[in-house]
Amino acid sequence: MTQKKPWQGRFSAETDEVFEVFSESLSFDYRLFSQDIAGSIAHCRMLVKQAIIPKESGDKIIQALKKVREEIAAGKIEFDPAWEDIHMAVEACVISKTGPVGGAMHTARSRNDQVATDLRLYVRDSILEIQSLLSGLMTAFIEKAKQYIDVILPGLTHLQHAQAVRFSHHLMAYVEMLRRDSQRLSDALKRVNVLPLGSGALSGTTFPLDREYVADQLGFEAISRNSMDAVSDRDFVVEFLAAAALIMAHLSRFSEDLIIWNSAYARFIELPDALTTGSSMMPQKKNPDGAELIRGKSGRVFGHLMAMLTVLKGLPMTYNRDLQEDKEPLFDAVDTVKAAISVAVLLVKGLEAIPERMAEATAWGYLQATDLADYLAKKGIPFRDAHAIVGRLVAHAIENGKALSAYTTEELQKFSPLFEKDALEVTAIDKGVDQRSGFGMTGRSAVMEQIEFAENNYLKNRETHSEKK
Amino acid sequence: MTQKKPWQGRFSAETDEVFEVFSESLSFDYRLFSQDIAGSIAHCRMLVKQAIIPKESGDKIIQALKKVREEIAAGKIEFDPAWEDIHMAVEACVISKTGPVGGAMHTARSRNDQVATDLRLYVRDSILEIQSLLSGLMTAFIEKAKQYIDVILPGLTHLQHAQAVRFSHHLMAYVEMLRRDSQRLSDALKRVNVLPLGSGALSGTTFPLDREYVADQLGFEAISRNSMDAVSDRDFVVEFLAAAALIMAHLSRFSEDLIIWNSAYARFIELPDALTTGSSMMPQKKNPDGAELIRGKSGRVFGHLMAMLTVLKGLPMTYNRDLQEDKEPLFDAVDTVKAAISVAVLLVKGLEAIPERMAEATAWGYLQATDLADYLAKKGIPFRDAHAIVGRLVAHAIENGKALSAYTTEELQKFSPLFEKDALEVTAIDKGVDQRSGFGMTGRSAVMEQIEFAENNYLKNRETHSEKK
Amino acid sequence: MTQKKPWQGRFSAETDEVFEVFSESLSFDYRLFSQDIAGSIAHCRMLVKQAIIPKESGDKIIQALKKVREEIAAGKIEFDPAWEDIHMAVEACVISKTGPVGGAMHTARSRNDQVATDLRLYVRDSILEIQSLLSGLMTAFIEKAKQYIDVILPGLTHLQHAQAVRFSHHLMAYVEMLRRDSQRLSDALKRVNVLPLGSGALSGTTFPLDREYVADQLGFEAISRNSMDAVSDRDFVVEFLAAAALIMAHLSRFSEDLIIWNSAYARFIELPDALTTGSSMMPQKKNPDGAELIRGKSGRVFGHLMAMLTVLKGLPMTYNRDLQEDKEPLFDAVDTVKAAISVAVLLVKGLEAIPERMAEATAWGYLQATDLADYLAKKGIPFRDAHAIVGRLVAHAIENGKALSAYTTEELQKFSPLFEKDALEVTAIDKGVDQRSGFGMTGRSAVMEQIEFAENNYLKNRETHSEKK
Amino acid sequence: MTQKKPWQGRFSAETDEVFEVFSESLSFDYRLFSQDIAGSIAHCRMLVKQAIIPKESGDKIIQALKKVREEIAAGKIEFDPAWEDIHMAVEACVISKTGPVGGAMHTARSRNDQVATDLRLYVRDSILEIQSLLSGLMTAFIEKAKQYIDVILPGLTHLQHAQAVRFSHHLMAYVEMLRRDSQRLSDALKRVNVLPLGSGALSGTTFPLDREYVADQLGFEAISRNSMDAVSDRDFVVEFLAAAALIMAHLSRFSEDLIIWNSAYARFIELPDALTTGSSMMPQKKNPDGAELIRGKSGRVFGHLMAMLTVLKGLPMTYNRDLQEDKEPLFDAVDTVKAAISVAVLLVKGLEAIPERMAEATAWGYLQATDLADYLAKKGIPFRDAHAIVGRLVAHAIENGKALSAYTTEELQKFSPLFEKDALEVTAIDKGVDQRSGFGMTGRSAVMEQIEFAENNYLKNRETHSEKK
Repeated sequence: MTQKKPWQGRFSAETDEVFEVFSESLSFDYRLFSQDIAGSIAHCRMLVKQAIIPKESGDKIIQALKKVREEIAAGKIEFDPAWEDIHMAVEACVISKTGPVGGAMHTARSRNDQVATDLRLYVRDSILEIQSLLSGLMTAFIEKAKQYIDVILPGLTHLQHAQAVRFSHHLMAYVEMLRRDSQRLSDALKRVNVLPLGSGALSGTTFPLDREYVADQLGFEAISRNSMDAVSDRDFVVEFLAAAALIMAHLSRFSEDLIIWNSAYARFIELPDALTTGSSMMPQKKNPDGAELIRGKSGRVFGHLMAMLTVLKGLPMTYNRDLQEDKEPLFDAVDTVKAAISVAVLLVKGLEAIPERMAEATAWGYLQATDLADYLAKKGIPFRDAHAIVGRLVAHAIENGKALSAYTTEELQKFSPLFEKDALEVTAIDKGVDQRSGFGMTGRSAVMEQIEFAENNYLKNRETHSEKK
Repeated sequence: MTQKKPWQGRFSAETDEVFEVFSESLSFDYRLFSQDIAGSIAHCRMLVKQAIIPKESGDKIIQALKKVREEIAAGKIEFDPAWEDIHMAVEACVISKTGPVGGAMHTARSRNDQVATDLRLYVRDSILEIQSLLSGLMTAFIEKAKQYIDVILPGLTHLQHAQAVRFSHHLMAYVEMLRRDSQRLSDALKRVNVLPLGSGALSGTTFPLDREYVADQLGFEAISRNSMDAVSDRDFVVEFLAAAALIMAHLSRFSEDLIIWNSAYARFIELPDALTTGSSMMPQKKNPDGAELIRGKSGRVFGHLMAMLTVLKGLPMTYNRDLQEDKEPLFDAVDTVKAAISVAVLLVKGLEAIPERMAEATAWGYLQATDLADYLAKKGIPFRDAHAIVGRLVAHAIENGKALSAYTTEELQKFSPLFEKDALEVTAIDKGVDQRSGFGMTGRSAVMEQIEFAENNYLKNRETHSEKK
Repeated sequence: MTQKKPWQGRFSAETDEVFEVFSESLSFDYRLFSQDIAGSIAHCRMLVKQAIIPKESGDKIIQALKKVREEIAAGKIEFDPAWEDIHMAVEACVISKTGPVGGAMHTARSRNDQVATDLRLYVRDSILEIQSLLSGLMTAFIEKAKQYIDVILPGLTHLQHAQAVRFSHHLMAYVEMLRRDSQRLSDALKRVNVLPLGSGALSGTTFPLDREYVADQLGFEAISRNSMDAVSDRDFVVEFLAAAALIMAHLSRFSEDLIIWNSAYARFIELPDALTTGSSMMPQKKNPDGAELIRGKSGRVFGHLMAMLTVLKGLPMTYNRDLQEDKEPLFDAVDTVKAAISVAVLLVKGLEAIPERMAEATAWGYLQATDLADYLAKKGIPFRDAHAIVGRLVAHAIENGKALSAYTTEELQKFSPLFEKDALEVTAIDKGVDQRSGFGMTGRSAVMEQIEFAENNYLKNRETHSEKK
Repeated sequence: MTQKKPWQGRFSAETDEVFEVFSESLSFDYRLFSQDIAGSIAHCRMLVKQAIIPKESGDKIIQALKKVREEIAAGKIEFDPAWEDIHMAVEACVISKTGPVGGAMHTARSRNDQVATDLRLYVRDSILEIQSLLSGLMTAFIEKAKQYIDVILPGLTHLQHAQAVRFSHHLMAYVEMLRRDSQRLSDALKRVNVLPLGSGALSGTTFPLDREYVADQLGFEAISRNSMDAVSDRDFVVEFLAAAALIMAHLSRFSEDLIIWNSAYARFIELPDALTTGSSMMPQKKNPDGAELIRGKSGRVFGHLMAMLTVLKGLPMTYNRDLQEDKEPLFDAVDTVKAAISVAVLLVKGLEAIPERMAEATAWGYLQATDLADYLAKKGIPFRDAHAIVGRLVAHAIENGKALSAYTTEELQKFSPLFEKDALEVTAIDKGVDQRSGFGMTGRSAVMEQIEFAENNYLKNRETHSEKK
């Protein structure tokens, strides 16, 4: 026997069962329970404060809410599908404890502003957790960069040898990306952390609310300024999903690098056994499943962003039931991003460079060509000419199976008399790399500066936005 | 204590727990169990037939597979997360019944061709189910069109009054869309229903397989022609998702029409109580939640399509673990489409037209203007002039608050002497509509023909593609 | 005869013609010309300052660059397809004026850091222009809200009558959305306005650059900290596109409202002739093409966002030619957003409310129901009971074709003795609406506060980020 | 001075200029001119045949239409922006030649069914062209497969060595993908090639049309069955875009393979100079720009698909101006797909395998492991045990820097006495590969069969769907 819906008074037919399953959200929005209860507690306190409901009722309800929170957290409550959504579920649980007075907590509130409040609290919590995970991933990259500060590998453009770079420099590139991701989440947070409660169904209420008080209780930094906007606004979900999509794009790029470094072709790194699958027959084989899964999972987050934009497209004001579709993409994006970062941390921590393989590739990549041309240009030769000279040198090196670092000053001078002894500072891979010492470049001092700056500025603990207990 | 993975022989570290959760698929691919077992039975029969494994082993394994299928279906098996995926789960269950011989069912097979086979069977099953649901929805539209065959409402372009149309004609427009959806799925099926088994990990196998026999057992109409393609091909998932996206686009358009017809503005229809939510205070209010949810759920299916395309983008050959991301979007799209069609059936069956409201809107919409201009044009007046004359007439009607149908022949003749008695056949809404009697138009006979054709040609039962029991 | 490519020295075959067309970008990146030249001027000044090139050369080049800028702006230069991209085009034009010395402007620079610089300048310019347009649109909404401050219309949820609201309140909801859009762009700008120049091809350069000086010249607020990241980073394009997608989502929602208000069903507003198309025969018909086009154009911007995310997915470090695909989606999104906002301004300015139609709909919408229930609740009746009482009243009103505002106190008391004279303050639409006087609500004072706040805080002129002349 | 719009009779204000630019489509739909004219000719012939317009008028108009077609094709007509779209442009040009009688060609037609007709003709033409290009690309792959029929390279899963495969087998995998693409387009064509003309604005017309005759003239295979559906249906655009997206996904995967093969890591192939960019300094460097651009361009086509789905989402019936947004994504997708296939043809034709590099990688990849285990399994050893034995062998080989092919029978027997002389048939790479001789596998005979089948069945010329001249 299904319980009567509150709005069902006059309805002659029961809600169709197929439709009931289609429209219920409890099976996924149950995870908003703690946000929902936090919101209700703050709302109740305000109702009491404003003398909208009696203190006794308020106290009773708040006590029940806390108890329900505990019970749900402990898995002690079995959800009845007839409850439809987490708001109804919590209300039903409270009323079962308080009797009819429990219904009073819904005074001067609508499910429209209530769900918006819950969702904002959830996104806020998720952002803070993800920022903390990002901080952990940046730390892992930084540690690895420090460990391999002087390991050099070929820097690529177009997957072609371009210039030698520090492995640490390459790793720090990802720290910059992640830093932007974290900043973007902070910026989004400003628009997330706004209290919609008090907007009612769409136009506010005639009760004398104290919205400031509620905002303060819940740690919101601002209060929504237009009730019609407040109940229909899901921008913050889109903005979060867009930031999440970029995080996944970054992780997919890192995964690609890892997969290639770990590939049969490069063998530049060794990935930890715990994050790969292997073959009992081919011991050298280590499938980089962790990285492949991260790369693949970028798809679902991109898709969720598209889903949410589609939901909003052409939606008339104000609340429409379409908005219920905000939750599943959001929840899955949060889970995916958190898991992907966590696995990325393990990958970064676990990866071991194979410097010999990198060095070998670097030696034979003719990666000093640009610097040699710059060397000549600094001596006054026009660029085009410098390029032509170095081109002839590299062609000679290839033909003779000789690394550029193996040329003596005299040999170099056969290509241009301007080559002097200090040209060997350019052809020696490590010395050449260190000449790129400008801000943000791959020279040792420059990379050390990047690391230091990141350590001092990117990993700070965020203050938490917490509701009053 | 976690069970050893089969490929874990030489691995020194246990798979990391975070990664294990990240990479397991059993929590969602369990639903391939019947397809997986069907595939394994067919494979085993072939192994026996080809004398690759002894008949006794084969019989024992097949018996165990059938038993496991029963047990899973009956919910008697508790899945161990260590099994990772449904293939491992089934194998473990079989071996627990047969002893080590159960492992022989994996002879001459790889997880790569196995999962491709399972997924194709699943998509095939889903297509057939969805086609059956589409057939039900077309039937519902056709029945409703027949019920309201003569109800006339304003036909709109730009949500502006354009020409009067039969309500049945409007409903039949959706039947055409759904028919295309069903055809598209049939076309996709040709590319789905191809056996990949026998492709091994990527290059086939040295065992003397009989792939024809397996295809025949499983009801596949063709056999993959290139093993490298076969293990990496997920085109059929994308193609299914694209067809699913169009189904949802159609349903979102129908939902929009319903929402507007049901809106405070139009009140052209009454939706069934069971599919709406209401207000105990405002009895006239019926929120069209069913239609809004369908409209909103178009987003997730569009998103899943985008997700899958993203997964495939730039993926090197052949199998990469990214492909594991094919399942969740697919499963959710199948569920969503099936549920959305089912709810649409209820909406169509349940909706009641309010012909008086439609008639009233039609009368005052000046919808006969085009036909009146055509009337004059047929009498030889150039179009532009005919338009101008009718424009003056409509302006007069608006000014005088008079419907066009209320003008007498004499009154019409004040605007043009060419108007004769038969002009009243044009201004009378119902007669005017019936003059649009050409193929596919909104006249009664034309709509009846549409209905009859659809009944005779769109609802045929499909033969099923079933595997041998 | 095609000109030799600079990198083509050793190449034996000419670039294939089909490929040349495929790979050229000049046909669309020509619009970066002023950004490209600004970047080159700043770079040259720095090269001179750092004594990397002689002052004479620098002066000559800078003069030529300025001249080329003028000529391109004046349409005096015909682009040669062989130039491939705008960077090459500008260089060729400069060299044609300066002779070979012009090549020196490319010292210590690569196309990789150059194009990143140009694109960032372009996005910065576009953000500032769009913010200015958004400001104009907010102003239009605010003006319209002031004009119609006291017009009341039915506030809807689910396109169903819910509660009466001020038209001005509804309009101000869009101002809140646009405000967030503008803020989001400001936040994005922080990550856009970072100088990549000096990153070279990927690892920096051995020349002694002064990157601070270049940043200062170009108005950049920060300098990229990692050269490998800097040449491959297109986050700022994605972030811009995501913000653009939300702007379009907002405009699509406003368009939907307009289309419905303007529809045959509602006729709440009159749209300006200049933004609609009509029919010479049906003078009452005004197709809201402007709004429909805006709504439709949301699709292309969503698509461009998806395109850019797809480009980045799985891209290995650092620069890959795929990144050339950043421009067309960006350019089209900028154009679309700017045009859509401009047309929206015209729509808002031009729309005329038809208060009688709104009032009529409001009167018969039973929109006071919630407030009446709140009225009873405040007198101590439990909510559920209050709802039931009001439900009976509304049912009575519907049955008797009577507006709620037409009930006398005595008549109301038949439904509950708690109704007193002040209940008429609730049933009178305008008085009832004004009781929603809390922060952000629809009461007159609350809406006035919204308007005032927006006027004082949302429309401030942004300081421009301009490069030194 | 702007020309009066035909529907502008009663409009008091001129269409706003900003809006005019926003709403015009002539700047992109001009490319429908030949389809538009073909449609008009067929329509006119029918009007004459049905005696709706006089033969003289019809002849005059048709002659003018043909002349206009010639002139546009020859670039002799300068489009006036005031014409707004190609339909108006053609009409204006015709009338300028015929005088007012030209207007008669619009009898019994609306822009709604006209544009739908034009677009279907355009998509049909595009499909046929793309199928022809696909055929060319399949041919190129087949030729290359024949050229390198016996070249062997490591077959990869997870970018890890798995099993040796023929290079030809790998290439033929792409032929299978392209074949599906072509089939998918053929299936789409069935739904494209349907005549909408005769549907009028939305409900048909009162004129006695002969739609069969028009369909026959234009080579349409079917006639739309519901006029409301016909004017609002853009499914065929979505279906085309989905097929185009898959083509691009395939080409992006092939590009990825090419880029990796061409990479600094693998050097398995040499790409033609004409399709790469190089460095005058680093002669060995060949940036695979062609492949990178194709890979990147997958993004825009995915985006266009998403754009079009977004346009359709929630659109009410029937024609809405949003639908104008169907053209640009379609046109760009057609251009992109055609160009990408053309460049892919050049890449395939131009690529040269470096068999020595492939052979070297194959020799040291221990790729015979699976086959060796199968060898033992065939001799009756349980799989797990066979794997363990081979695992020990591979470990020994790695430790001793020895290729598996270098082991003698006696040496193999130290790992299992079951190894006999014929085990050397397995360890010899080429012989081992040929043992995979089953249908679709990588053995020589199997690949030859794939090639032959493709040559005989995939490249057939399609009959063209041409309109009568």
